[in-house]
Amino acid sequence: MDKIKVGVAGYGTIGKRVADVVKLQKDMELIGVTARSYSFRMATCAEKGIPMYAINSEAREELSENGLKTEGMVDDLLKNCDIIVDCSPKKFGKENKEKFYVPNKVKAIFQGGEKPDVAQASFVAQCNYDEALNKDYVRVVSCNTTGMCRTLNAIDKVFGVERVDATMIRRGADPWDIRHGPMNSIVPVLELPSHHGPDVQTVLKNMKVFTTALSVSTSLMHMHNLIVDLNKAATVDDILDIFKKTTRVRVVSNAAKVRSTAEIMELARDLGRNRGDMPEICVWKEGIGVQNKKLFYMQAVHQESDVICENIDAIRAMMGFKDGAKSIQMTNETMGIK
Amino acid sequence: MDKIKVGVAGYGTIGKRVADVVKLQKDMELIGVTARSYSFRMATCAEKGIPMYAINSEAREELSENGLKTEGMVDDLLKNCDIIVDCSPKKFGKENKEKFYVPNKVKAIFQGGEKPDVAQASFVAQCNYDEALNKDYVRVVSCNTTGMCRTLNAIDKVFGVERVDATMIRRGADPWDIRHGPMNSIVPVLELPSHHGPDVQTVLKNMKVFTTALSVSTSLMHMHNLIVDLNKAATVDDILDIFKKTTRVRVVSNAAKVRSTAEIMELARDLGRNRGDMPEICVWKEGIGVQNKKLFYMQAVHQESDVICENIDAIRAMMGFKDGAKSIQMTNETMGIK
Amino acid sequence: MDKIKVGVAGYGTIGKRVADVVKLQKDMELIGVTARSYSFRMATCAEKGIPMYAINSEAREELSENGLKTEGMVDDLLKNCDIIVDCSPKKFGKENKEKFYVPNKVKAIFQGGEKPDVAQASFVAQCNYDEALNKDYVRVVSCNTTGMCRTLNAIDKVFGVERVDATMIRRGADPWDIRHGPMNSIVPVLELPSHHGPDVQTVLKNMKVFTTALSVSTSLMHMHNLIVDLNKAATVDDILDIFKKTTRVRVVSNAAKVRSTAEIMELARDLGRNRGDMPEICVWKEGIGVQNKKLFYMQAVHQESDVICENIDAIRAMMGFKDGAKSIQMTNETMGIK
Amino acid sequence: MDKIKVGVAGYGTIGKRVADVVKLQKDMELIGVTARSYSFRMATCAEKGIPMYAINSEAREELSENGLKTEGMVDDLLKNCDIIVDCSPKKFGKENKEKFYVPNKVKAIFQGGEKPDVAQASFVAQCNYDEALNKDYVRVVSCNTTGMCRTLNAIDKVFGVERVDATMIRRGADPWDIRHGPMNSIVPVLELPSHHGPDVQTVLKNMKVFTTALSVSTSLMHMHNLIVDLNKAATVDDILDIFKKTTRVRVVSNAAKVRSTAEIMELARDLGRNRGDMPEICVWKEGIGVQNKKLFYMQAVHQESDVICENIDAIRAMMGFKDGAKSIQMTNETMGIK
Repeated sequence: MDKIKVGVAGYGTIGKRVADVVKLQKDMELIGVTARSYSFRMATCAEKGIPMYAINSEAREELSENGLKTEGMVDDLLKNCDIIVDCSPKKFGKENKEKFYVPNKVKAIFQGGEKPDVAQASFVAQCNYDEALNKDYVRVVSCNTTGMCRTLNAIDKVFGVERVDATMIRRGADPWDIRHGPMNSIVPVLELPSHHGPDVQTVLKNMKVFTTALSVSTSLMHMHNLIVDLNKAATVDDILDIFKKTTRVRVVSNAAKVRSTAEIMELARDLGRNRGDMPEICVWKEGIGVQNKKLFYMQAVHQESDVICENIDAIRAMMGFKDGAKSIQMTNETMGIK
Repeated sequence: MDKIKVGVAGYGTIGKRVADVVKLQKDMELIGVTARSYSFRMATCAEKGIPMYAINSEAREELSENGLKTEGMVDDLLKNCDIIVDCSPKKFGKENKEKFYVPNKVKAIFQGGEKPDVAQASFVAQCNYDEALNKDYVRVVSCNTTGMCRTLNAIDKVFGVERVDATMIRRGADPWDIRHGPMNSIVPVLELPSHHGPDVQTVLKNMKVFTTALSVSTSLMHMHNLIVDLNKAATVDDILDIFKKTTRVRVVSNAAKVRSTAEIMELARDLGRNRGDMPEICVWKEGIGVQNKKLFYMQAVHQESDVICENIDAIRAMMGFKDGAKSIQMTNETMGIK
Repeated sequence: MDKIKVGVAGYGTIGKRVADVVKLQKDMELIGVTARSYSFRMATCAEKGIPMYAINSEAREELSENGLKTEGMVDDLLKNCDIIVDCSPKKFGKENKEKFYVPNKVKAIFQGGEKPDVAQASFVAQCNYDEALNKDYVRVVSCNTTGMCRTLNAIDKVFGVERVDATMIRRGADPWDIRHGPMNSIVPVLELPSHHGPDVQTVLKNMKVFTTALSVSTSLMHMHNLIVDLNKAATVDDILDIFKKTTRVRVVSNAAKVRSTAEIMELARDLGRNRGDMPEICVWKEGIGVQNKKLFYMQAVHQESDVICENIDAIRAMMGFKDGAKSIQMTNETMGIK
Repeated sequence: MDKIKVGVAGYGTIGKRVADVVKLQKDMELIGVTARSYSFRMATCAEKGIPMYAINSEAREELSENGLKTEGMVDDLLKNCDIIVDCSPKKFGKENKEKFYVPNKVKAIFQGGEKPDVAQASFVAQCNYDEALNKDYVRVVSCNTTGMCRTLNAIDKVFGVERVDATMIRRGADPWDIRHGPMNSIVPVLELPSHHGPDVQTVLKNMKVFTTALSVSTSLMHMHNLIVDLNKAATVDDILDIFKKTTRVRVVSNAAKVRSTAEIMELARDLGRNRGDMPEICVWKEGIGVQNKKLFYMQAVHQESDVICENIDAIRAMMGFKDGAKSIQMTNETMGIK
């Protein structure tokens, strides 16, 4: 079988991780990535032997002056790819669609910063793989939405979810980002609900989710405190059992001294994960509580990495690979996810 | 009328504020505070002319060597006071009670770090002033519990509260505290419910409150995201109206660029508040939401100062001043609280 | 004697403090401040009874819609003032000079964010008060430059300064600023020397100063680690003695448990300072070291407040008040500075 | 040739990294590590197949109850090893020496938290490899001392170092450490010089180094601002050339958008380094300045990893491997260091 020819537009937090993982898939070939300007990111990209395509002649020149060779321009990349994973900053995805992907008749995946209507489906592999089958444009939802979909969908299947109320405690900026705060404050999102609730419904169509959100001074992970009204009574052990059996969800434990998002990240480094990533949603064993049909749990979301595996599965679905469970398994194995 | 003779045990975050505000009350006299060791805190205490009583002879000597005069030992303070406000660190209050207050037959107020059974009543002035009337031992509840009681009690009176689910996002350490973290992490409280829910019930006896909590890297304020099941349907304007009319609650607004706990603290400084304090619980106008009988709101709690006025009112109640509303008004006026 | 009529342009971190302190001067009258848009800052300004002048009709309307009355437009303010203290953001001072102050023939003080050539003199009261006498345009240097000038000038007078090498550890953002980082990083200024060294020389003309700088995740104060080559040998006690005698410099001490910038800010709050400010430059007693003619010391600079008193003294100098020492004393007394 | 049998005592930040890298050496065999209690660290250790030896019977039981098998007790580990790398917390190394290593006649390496007299030599491979040859007890100096020795030694060899004055801006706590601050403060070390200067002299015997230090709210790296009086005049290019040629030193550049310690850590992750580590000392190209014989430079030190390679080289030296340059090269290759 021919390998799927994949390009990555935007070599930032998400793009560089997608590129790394595409290279690990036996059924995919990384044709190249786009390059916008010279930086340590592109220098390392070159060291890894990943072909770079300049977004314009200024970019090509700047890269060249700094000793980095480009294989051509964006158009050359588009010509050689079956599908582009667009990892541009928020709102540029839509622009790129009109300007590049539609005219060049290349399939494209967008990230959660874009509005849902940029694509034919919003996607979380273990929830709605089939919706992306053979589609031309698919949107992988945001890190937070992905995190809620994974655990809520698993609970819904067994106990039925009547309603969800969640508080999202968001990291203020990514680890490499020195420009943004807050440095010493709590910053509420002053709209109700926050956008996360409606976004879950682009994947889990009938789930009632109300979310409030705030940002804090940390760069490592987001945290979700969830309250779920179940259709049927459950026990803590029932819920724990579900999470243990759910792919891309990891149960962590205070008993093993995982007491914080910092220790989850340390665990990821100890596990030898690429870039120290933790793509699984981490649920605390001791943070699960049940009162009759009311369930409480706390989960941590690694904003840099949880959607990477989703992008890989979306590629397969859009290229016609029908077995979602198999795709998830293939992706997981290459990333060391159980 | 004779002034109430007040002593303060423990001149830390709470104690020094209580001392400042006792001095502002026309019906009270600050007899003195206890001193444990030399520090800038005690040097400033001396500059203010507040009499200091050493907790032991080593303390007296250390203070003396650094040029600070003490008026006597703790026993001398106890002899001269009608009531002691105990602001010792957690658990020392109970010790002090057995060792000092019971034998010396002096009334005492404890803080929220002590267990409820240290006292005859747990106290939030606008909720249960009368319970503290003429009591010998009263416990002012913690900053977080006080914050929840003030707003929930006000809502309960008008619309009835069926159930509360709250997430407490706690400051990791006080502004002056350089030893404690977290510096870059979110640290969940891995017990369900956190102790805050049951603690609310020591004041609002019949309120069903379930709380989860976590600590973040900020020193300024705590934040509460609350979900309230009401007995009767309400509108956002109804709720806003209640908060505007409730004493020691302040409605803040994104429209006035109060977007964070940092800007609340800046507002307090702009208002000329002593030490830059904000003793009012701050509720965001734009953070109030209603879906039928479900109410959402977000409030910020200044952990250093919201309980100070409670201590003052508790003094009056315990000394037999019967008019709670009048006491609250007297205290508020001296602190610049509307 | 007629009072000096003062206006303040820009009601931010510096402007609002200058306004507060102008009001405390017996020889000055605060005519008003400019207002750019509605916010809690302007609402509090109105509560204090400070007249506001809108920068344009949109501003006037926005303020009016939010219940805040303006006394007129900027031109009205200019007409009624002898002198304007311009506290606009960086670079706007120069614009305002050309647009407003020169055409209206009103004297103006600029802040350290402007380039030196905006004014006829750069100013630190205790170093070069006389240079500002009767000038039309004076620039108060930045918080960091002010801090270095105060202590270095004092040492230079007694022991002679051959050369200074200093590392400036800067706060990343002000306490109210939720937008800027870094949250978890050290960010070097990658130009040598940093601009602080040359800026000191606009006040202390012959001092050789080389500075390097970096930003860290704190909002409270800047810190300077200084290495000074002296012309004559000194002892630690000699230096300590100088600092104790120097106005607007405060010796703090580990022995009194002032171990950090956080505890300096706590001290300022304990002292009852307006807004919790510490306008004095704080030098650590235990941070002073001498090796022959090499002197080491560490000082902390409260970026929000150390230049406020300088602006007040600059007003007097520019309006012809000849006795610098007297002006400094008058200003200090109103601010509680020893 | 027989492989060197290595044990690791203390499986924390340093110990787990040493264990990982020992496994990569062709001439070494990792016999096992000590285990003190159950945690995610030990669970991951078990997953990696590293043999664990319990420090006492309680530890063995606790590990066993949590499903982790131990190979025996510490005595069993000692019997099977040629050399132990002791990575215990500060001061425990000395205790372990008396209690375990001397009686069992096993060679041992200590870390920089121990005092120099715990060992026969203090060690930085590229500075004094030969001093550790065939020794029984060697101390690898601290991360900060190692960082200064690497760059200063290189400069000294070419231009001669007359004197060094350095400011160390230290990270407040490691990334996984949620207990320690400061969260929002700068905390000076109030002793002069800080211990770092004298510690450099345990390796570079004749170098005059004076250091001041302070802690800030970051977990990623330490930073050093250095001022060096050279014996001979140099240019920026001369110095840059030295750093480029010096092993375990990396020149980073603002031009490549490495503007902060956060971006250095991101670079390490992009490079695919194990645990995202950066064992090289990073010097900023644009942070190098020269004024005649005075040199300024800024370097960042990854406190978790820069000493790991030193421990590996120390093992070889102590076991009689004579060629230091060859050892450094062997170690570097396994860690991906140029």
